[in-house]
Amino acid sequence: MHRYRSHTCAALRKSDVGATVRLSGWVHRVRDHGGVLFIDLRDHYGMTQVVADPDSPAFKVAETVRGEWVIRIDGVVKARTDETVNKNMPTGEIELYAQEIEVLSAAKELPLPVFGEPDYPEDVRLKYRFLDLRRETLHKNIVKRTQVIAAMRAGMAAEGFAEYSTPILTASSPEGARDFLVPSRIHQGKFFALPQAPQQYKQLLMVAGFDRYFQIAPCFRDEDPRADRLPGEFYQLDVEMSFVTQEDVWGTMEPMMTSVFEQFAEGKPVTKNWPRIPYDEAIRKYGSDKPDLRNPIVMQAVTEHFDGSGFKVFANMIASNPKVQVWAIPAKTGGSRAFCDRMNAWAQSQGQPGLGYIFWKEEDGKIAGSGPLAKNIGEERTEAIRTQMGLEAGDACFFVAGDPAKFYKFAGEARTRAGEELNLVDRDRFELCWIVDFPFFEYNEEEKKIDFAHNPFSMPQGGLEALETQDPLTIKAFQYDAVCNGFEIASGSIRNQSPELMVKAFELVGLSKADVEERFGGMYRAFQYGAPPHGGCAFGIDRIIMLLVGAKNLREITLFPMNQQAQDLLMNAPSEATPTQLRELALRVVPPQKKD
Amino acid sequence: MHRYRSHTCAALRKSDVGATVRLSGWVHRVRDHGGVLFIDLRDHYGMTQVVADPDSPAFKVAETVRGEWVIRIDGVVKARTDETVNKNMPTGEIELYAQEIEVLSAAKELPLPVFGEPDYPEDVRLKYRFLDLRRETLHKNIVKRTQVIAAMRAGMAAEGFAEYSTPILTASSPEGARDFLVPSRIHQGKFFALPQAPQQYKQLLMVAGFDRYFQIAPCFRDEDPRADRLPGEFYQLDVEMSFVTQEDVWGTMEPMMTSVFEQFAEGKPVTKNWPRIPYDEAIRKYGSDKPDLRNPIVMQAVTEHFDGSGFKVFANMIASNPKVQVWAIPAKTGGSRAFCDRMNAWAQSQGQPGLGYIFWKEEDGKIAGSGPLAKNIGEERTEAIRTQMGLEAGDACFFVAGDPAKFYKFAGEARTRAGEELNLVDRDRFELCWIVDFPFFEYNEEEKKIDFAHNPFSMPQGGLEALETQDPLTIKAFQYDAVCNGFEIASGSIRNQSPELMVKAFELVGLSKADVEERFGGMYRAFQYGAPPHGGCAFGIDRIIMLLVGAKNLREITLFPMNQQAQDLLMNAPSEATPTQLRELALRVVPPQKKD
Repeated sequence: MHRYRSHTCAALRKSDVGATVRLSGWVHRVRDHGGVLFIDLRDHYGMTQVVADPDSPAFKVAETVRGEWVIRIDGVVKARTDETVNKNMPTGEIELYAQEIEVLSAAKELPLPVFGEPDYPEDVRLKYRFLDLRRETLHKNIVKRTQVIAAMRAGMAAEGFAEYSTPILTASSPEGARDFLVPSRIHQGKFFALPQAPQQYKQLLMVAGFDRYFQIAPCFRDEDPRADRLPGEFYQLDVEMSFVTQEDVWGTMEPMMTSVFEQFAEGKPVTKNWPRIPYDEAIRKYGSDKPDLRNPIVMQAVTEHFDGSGFKVFANMIASNPKVQVWAIPAKTGGSRAFCDRMNAWAQSQGQPGLGYIFWKEEDGKIAGSGPLAKNIGEERTEAIRTQMGLEAGDACFFVAGDPAKFYKFAGEARTRAGEELNLVDRDRFELCWIVDFPFFEYNEEEKKIDFAHNPFSMPQGGLEALETQDPLTIKAFQYDAVCNGFEIASGSIRNQSPELMVKAFELVGLSKADVEERFGGMYRAFQYGAPPHGGCAFGIDRIIMLLVGAKNLREITLFPMNQQAQDLLMNAPSEATPTQLRELALRVVPPQKKD
Repeated sequence: MHRYRSHTCAALRKSDVGATVRLSGWVHRVRDHGGVLFIDLRDHYGMTQVVADPDSPAFKVAETVRGEWVIRIDGVVKARTDETVNKNMPTGEIELYAQEIEVLSAAKELPLPVFGEPDYPEDVRLKYRFLDLRRETLHKNIVKRTQVIAAMRAGMAAEGFAEYSTPILTASSPEGARDFLVPSRIHQGKFFALPQAPQQYKQLLMVAGFDRYFQIAPCFRDEDPRADRLPGEFYQLDVEMSFVTQEDVWGTMEPMMTSVFEQFAEGKPVTKNWPRIPYDEAIRKYGSDKPDLRNPIVMQAVTEHFDGSGFKVFANMIASNPKVQVWAIPAKTGGSRAFCDRMNAWAQSQGQPGLGYIFWKEEDGKIAGSGPLAKNIGEERTEAIRTQMGLEAGDACFFVAGDPAKFYKFAGEARTRAGEELNLVDRDRFELCWIVDFPFFEYNEEEKKIDFAHNPFSMPQGGLEALETQDPLTIKAFQYDAVCNGFEIASGSIRNQSPELMVKAFELVGLSKADVEERFGGMYRAFQYGAPPHGGCAFGIDRIIMLLVGAKNLREITLFPMNQQAQDLLMNAPSEATPTQLRELALRVVPPQKKD
């Protein structure tokens, strides 16, 4: 027989009854039922119930074992009686009668219980991560994580993509977030940087003549920790394709990713044909470029109904500024004064003056609008709004007025709040979409100048002609995001592979050709030697896994995460360097300054 | 039709004749045959011949295109005449008659030719790596690299392994090579380190209850560049398993890796059942723990034949020191004075006093030994050696005498040289084996003390009892290497997961329990909370790919390598940090000191 096991702890079935077998695993718990000991033996695969009665030659050892000891058990498989069969366990029809127990590794008193997984302080969980990871939920999440990533790899391979690893010791990137630096020993005083993303390398791969690239790519950003962001490293499914339009990117990734979601959605519906929503439309309808489409609320402009109306606040705003619009947020089933007042109070708590509303009741067989706004604008306009918004008795509608560029975010939040408060959001589904046609430039209010809205590598729609003739703020980019349930899960674009166009685009944000050369020298140079049209995207793996396992915290889906203070408590990192290390790197640590 | 292509440049066949198609790709070369232009159009997948005659509406543009321009071509597929069919090209039966050509991206004059891939200085190749990668051989190598790694992933998955990513920002490792450090901004004055290998994490994963781990793992060592080592990062197929003996590791990896080799060996034979050669035997037979088994030469000790013989140099050595042995290196077909003298001269060039030999000729129907040694020891002993070594007329044998611990390396080199010079080595095969039972400790001559021979994490054979009672230098470890054609391609061991054993082993090399806790705190702590028996190995991916593609230089199988001075010439790394970056990290660069 094998030194440690003939079966895993998930393998034994009724058909094995009578067999002499060997199992190894962790003692999940020990129960004493009237002198008979029951040991739940656990391994990576599952759990088996072991019985040691006082007549068993294994009883003496069984009495000594404690939770989380690692033991080997030889024994005979017996059928459980009908009353003791456990239908929730794959091995629930049998139990193992122990004949011999060998302690492979005892455990000291546990700083963190594994069985039952009670809440425990995070610093203990991270310091003893090897115990934390034995807990059922975290163990399951991590296994699922490996499966999701394997499914992504299989999906990409099936689409003809190959996985290329790009360098991790690379050059500092002059835009985006803060880099992690790595001092060079051979070139003292100089530094490598860890990649924030393999953006430049994947584009260089296309210029180098490779066609369909992907990578489960480690990325590094030295940003301050936040609840939805682990300090340090994260993974993305990075993709790039040559000779493609944006439709090719969507057409490739959409079925692949739908399939990945379906494989792990545990039966929840997944969008098969992702709507392609232009950025402007997303803002108009949902007040967000990351709309949660599980929320059925769709906003509309109802400016005309307030123009010249008796509701002077809105009417005067409309009259005084052509940019002013009034947006309506329909709230099915929200037609009570109590709910509308709650929404109004919430808006005030968000620093807004309030949230105008109308709600409709059935009165004498007729649907009538209620509330101050309805009174001010009169019955006809109230009815026109109700008809436009498709509302009925028992429903409400909220109104936001002003310059949409300034209020759309708040309107989006009001939409989210109304949907959630009224339980209009179906949580048990994955609603996916593409947000497309992002603006290429944006106005930087602080610096009073035009900036790239997203990334300078994207291709502006309309090409050189647009850059030369169009109002920059009206130019769209071939730039898109994928969104799931209100979270951005991917971002991508068709790239600007023309050196001429690149220089022109940078010029419009006030940067020179020399700046382009200095910042993106490798890529700018490459584009001058035959660059194919290309584009791609990057999916955020951590976010997708969080959605699929329903985790709220990145540490619930990450093997060995740092804590919120960017420390690895298990391995004790970061730590001091030795004087030799610092000398070899020609570095000196400056005494820390008092922070403000 | 698609904006850029209806087919790839490798797709068109005779069955497509008559079709109007669209291709995009790079101009591989343009030839002018009596006014008719032939363009070889190349993409990731292959090449298609395009024809533009002066009547073609595309002719005017065709005249302008140059090598490495990216163009789109619409045209009609025509069959080639029998004389012009190219059987070496998948598309060699057709050509494309161009009707329209669009220049997608012109190229400046090339700093590095792509077509024909002539030799070129390495700094130009690395600076213009995006052009270098378009060259046929390098492009093919990189594609094969992605396929080999994909095959490894598939093989591991088929064996029930899951791929887990371990942290890249981690703690400095106190043993082994030099770490790359990453200064922490949030904890100024402290440093992360990039992992030299995920050794501790993979063992922690086993302690955490996961069972079969693998990872295509990036590893980082800040070592001085060498021909067979890229500065910076490299990849290994990292593997770990729980509840296993070393036979389980071999039994899992051997068929998997054999299959990977077979998939890419292009018909060359691959060892199916890898011999398991104890370390001591490998040294005795091959003078190396990385024997090239394609070389049929097997050494033997022939001490007895020289003991008390007339060859006084050897006889006196044997008499004066019981450690002295004489090893024989048989050299089939080497039986000429000219060859033996060449070997002797080579040995002297290696700083040896010479290389004694006997060679055999047929004389008067008898096989007779020749050379000074044969004369000195006489006919009977000469014949005894010939019989033991299985040699015939026309063969030779070389002899090395002394303490084997001191001469085995040279004997191994002589074996290699004789095998190669005599063309005994069959280069067209992959000979794989395991070298097992490595010594656990070794004697450090410089420090006059015992050291770990390989790694302190391995389990000593015989366990605690061996550590307590045996001469340490005779203790073997459950430690093994895999070797292919004379190169170490993997290393592994069953781990020492007992805290008690760990402390004892460290004691023997003069380190205390406190040292264990300081150096391997995370793992030492983990082993006290129920650690399963476990073991694994790591295969060197770069080396395996070099063997499979027959490359001599790591830069021929690496996408974006640094140069030998540890610089990335394409992205310009390492480079200076900005004052802001240094201030945020609380670091100051010390003016470089003159090096000796």
